[in-house]
Amino acid sequence: MRVTDDKERNLGTAEQLVAEAAARGARLAVLPEMFAWRGPEEGIADAAEPLQGPAMARMAEAARRHRLTLVAGSFYEKDGTAGLPFNTTVVFGADGARLGVYRKVHLFDVALPGKVEIRESDRMRAGDEIVCVDTEAGRVGLSICYDLRFPEMYRRLTREGATLICVPAAFTHATGAAHWEVLLRARAIENQVYVLAPNQIGPTVDGPPVWGGSSIIDPWGVVLARAPDTEGVLTAEIDPDHLAAVRAGLPCLEHARLSAGGEVERGGDR
Amino acid sequence: MRVTDDKERNLGTAEQLVAEAAARGARLAVLPEMFAWRGPEEGIADAAEPLQGPAMARMAEAARRHRLTLVAGSFYEKDGTAGLPFNTTVVFGADGARLGVYRKVHLFDVALPGKVEIRESDRMRAGDEIVCVDTEAGRVGLSICYDLRFPEMYRRLTREGATLICVPAAFTHATGAAHWEVLLRARAIENQVYVLAPNQIGPTVDGPPVWGGSSIIDPWGVVLARAPDTEGVLTAEIDPDHLAAVRAGLPCLEHARLSAGGEVERGGDR
Repeated sequence: MRVTDDKERNLGTAEQLVAEAAARGARLAVLPEMFAWRGPEEGIADAAEPLQGPAMARMAEAARRHRLTLVAGSFYEKDGTAGLPFNTTVVFGADGARLGVYRKVHLFDVALPGKVEIRESDRMRAGDEIVCVDTEAGRVGLSICYDLRFPEMYRRLTREGATLICVPAAFTHATGAAHWEVLLRARAIENQVYVLAPNQIGPTVDGPPVWGGSSIIDPWGVVLARAPDTEGVLTAEIDPDHLAAVRAGLPCLEHARLSAGGEVERGGDR
Repeated sequence: MRVTDDKERNLGTAEQLVAEAAARGARLAVLPEMFAWRGPEEGIADAAEPLQGPAMARMAEAARRHRLTLVAGSFYEKDGTAGLPFNTTVVFGADGARLGVYRKVHLFDVALPGKVEIRESDRMRAGDEIVCVDTEAGRVGLSICYDLRFPEMYRRLTREGATLICVPAAFTHATGAAHWEVLLRARAIENQVYVLAPNQIGPTVDGPPVWGGSSIIDPWGVVLARAPDTEGVLTAEIDPDHLAAVRAGLPCLEHARLSAGGEVERGGDR
């Protein structure tokens, strides 16, 4: 998706793309980060909505209508406090019920002169929880964009049983060209999970251009599908047997020896 | 290097390549995993040497003669016990003194039918320590081959101050084609370190062929140099100012929020 400050257009596009995914047989769909709205800082307070607001109600209805699990990228979520909004992913089941909520943990405060200068912590509040959600398509680990740079978060999602990890993003063009695909593939390879990574495309109304390159990656690190830089639907098959075969043949998840505290545990001689 | 079961040839090749590196101005040189000898299982007990044995004595002398820091890949190290040998990296300073010893922590026990079937734990004993070494070229984190699949080890080396991480390897052709470069680049990017990764080349005398593709990668993930699949020396410049600029512009190491125990720490709003 290309996301603008026209919320009605963005939500309509999301609904249309989810319908197209369903028509192509999708059982799970993932939207990009901030798919509902992006715009200048002064517009955020107005654009933010509660979990029960109209934007998420429309996504719940899209999931229900098309009978699929919908990982609704993310949106500016306001709670009842005076604090900044969260950057929040909501997952809806095929009956439209809310299955889980993840609030972005790592905020992107970066100053690459002449390329990217963004301080997300001026615009949003960070979440404090790591979230996996059981869905019809398997146990889904949630993350958003900049989280991708923190391998320990994907280790934790994998330890908690995730077999698919979503990375809805608005990854910038400068950092995406250098790092997007390599980090997505590494997360898939080292954790032996499917990685589903829809990124925004095009110029943006409030910052540097984004990279595109939405991708679906298998547990061996193969890029099963990569989107062109147009709005559209990217599909691939999630095969639990393939995932099991990868984990059985190269059982690196069983071979991990550093404890959570960073010490090497005994038993390396097997 | 192509490594065989002719130890004299291997050590001679290593000495010649270190001399060539020194002639090209190298201040730090890294040899591949098991550069001194590789061969069938029944030959390992004879080929193994203590830390004070002739193979490491020759490497100490090479470092001293050429006045450079030498990360002597790895070799089968026997200690005084009846146990299996370790897979051990020794680092020598420019005066020939031993600066550090790392024994491979993660052993490669893999069965990919028709491609790779190796049980390192039948041939060697695992180490239990994570090791960084201060050298003239900066603080060097040590790892070997299969360790590359465990991001938590590289996080720990980085937390302990490493700015260069060595990955001497004998990465197989099948897994190398799929995973070598992407994992090396990811380790460099997520930890903002230089990665120095000399891999063996060619067919092997005791197992599947190896991948080659020795690489030097900068803290932004750029492949500064990649070796052809011939024996030789690969060089690049390590620039502490570049590393500092990468870390200042995109301070993701400061943004990490998961504790060693995997919990999200407070303070995400900065």
